[in-house]
Amino acid sequence: MSDAAFETLERLPAYRIAERTIRRKILDGSLAPGTLLPPEHDLAEQLGVTRPTVREAMRSLESAGLIERGARRRMAVTAPAKNIVINAMHEAIVLHGISYRELWEVQTAVEPLAARLAADNITDDLVERLRSNLDRTADCLEDPIALAAADIEFHDLVAQAAQNHALLLAREPLGALLLPAYGTVIRRIGPGRRLFEAHRRIFQAIEAGDADTAQDWMSKHFVDFKRGCELAGLDFDDAVAPNQNTIDNSTNGDTP
Amino acid sequence: MSDAAFETLERLPAYRIAERTIRRKILDGSLAPGTLLPPEHDLAEQLGVTRPTVREAMRSLESAGLIERGARRRMAVTAPAKNIVINAMHEAIVLHGISYRELWEVQTAVEPLAARLAADNITDDLVERLRSNLDRTADCLEDPIALAAADIEFHDLVAQAAQNHALLLAREPLGALLLPAYGTVIRRIGPGRRLFEAHRRIFQAIEAGDADTAQDWMSKHFVDFKRGCELAGLDFDDAVAPNQNTIDNSTNGDTP
Repeated sequence: MSDAAFETLERLPAYRIAERTIRRKILDGSLAPGTLLPPEHDLAEQLGVTRPTVREAMRSLESAGLIERGARRRMAVTAPAKNIVINAMHEAIVLHGISYRELWEVQTAVEPLAARLAADNITDDLVERLRSNLDRTADCLEDPIALAAADIEFHDLVAQAAQNHALLLAREPLGALLLPAYGTVIRRIGPGRRLFEAHRRIFQAIEAGDADTAQDWMSKHFVDFKRGCELAGLDFDDAVAPNQNTIDNSTNGDTP
Repeated sequence: MSDAAFETLERLPAYRIAERTIRRKILDGSLAPGTLLPPEHDLAEQLGVTRPTVREAMRSLESAGLIERGARRRMAVTAPAKNIVINAMHEAIVLHGISYRELWEVQTAVEPLAARLAADNITDDLVERLRSNLDRTADCLEDPIALAAADIEFHDLVAQAAQNHALLLAREPLGALLLPAYGTVIRRIGPGRRLFEAHRRIFQAIEAGDADTAQDWMSKHFVDFKRGCELAGLDFDDAVAPNQNTIDNSTNGDTP
């Protein structure tokens, strides 16, 4: 006969268990966004834990963007702000040393899709904002800093025009890390005319509701992107550099 | 003369400031993954804050997956585990009520890209795993639960074969939320033969290194996916349901 054998129990800190309990109720919909959580002492009593434990769990849920301070200083359930997901993906991409090539490959599929959907779904407001972006682009073809900013704005506007929130979430960190590389291309080889011409064609197709042409021109534009990087002597296999603007906004819970 | 006017100062809790300071050094590379942070009391002294403040900042960085407990119980810098990003995106998709249509639209671009890249980059090991997946799929065409699991595995293996980490990060939460919907289609309209035939064609093209054909068949397969959902009476404009497996693993810091 052998002795009974036990595996070590999984021991999570109490605040992690409290956090997980509340998180499940939020995700399965039993606590909908807008619901106020009970005051700290009630919650502690209901869960059978101490108040510091509840406070700890709350901070963790707040960092994850699942709750925020609501009416009468009570915590309320909320849907996570987009920037929490974007920052998490940004950090993972940078710290795992993902390359420009990897981001570019994904963007060769996602950005033409954005252009295609934009042609089907764009609103009048976004048509005007894209037109104004093109006017400003035409005025700064020889100004590398302004041109790089206008380029990034153009692609962000097209993505917004697609009216697809899954696309916005998945694309934002990729664009925020990939497009700044083009700043170097702009400084070194001055592709202003060619970039403007591609943007103009994409815009015309979107405005005309011509999804196939919008998609094709965006695809060509991304082949050009890679060619520009090669001509400018960038190594596409380098790990991407962090985006300074994103770092400065990256403390969870700071910004809505 | 008017009184001087001041705006309210931005007052972040001390632990958020400590957290942000350390986070910036991690993201800009001055603290590389593997670096041990100073012991708590040293860090408190260096930053000019109390030890509880340092502890709070550490917990927040640990939840974000930027540090983990390393040698001699000291905290070490680390790259965030993939599941932290995936959970954050999963939570945002569910709580923002993103629809099956939105996920499907993105996947019509991303999955054909995965098939295309897989044809160029697949390893022998993944060829064998895909072959074994197909064999098992052929054996369970009439078993809805096993077939739904085999279907999800097939798409995960193709994505792995693409050898692109940005694609894996962006795609995983989309697939984990979209593909389970197909379980309903499988139960209601039994598309087993048609599904198997598409997977077989995609696999053959990937194995033959034929990127165009792999991409085309995956595109067709996703058009079929939508048609199947419509035939099965699913409303593509419904908000996606949370994936129970992901919820159960979703407490940050639990799993590596």
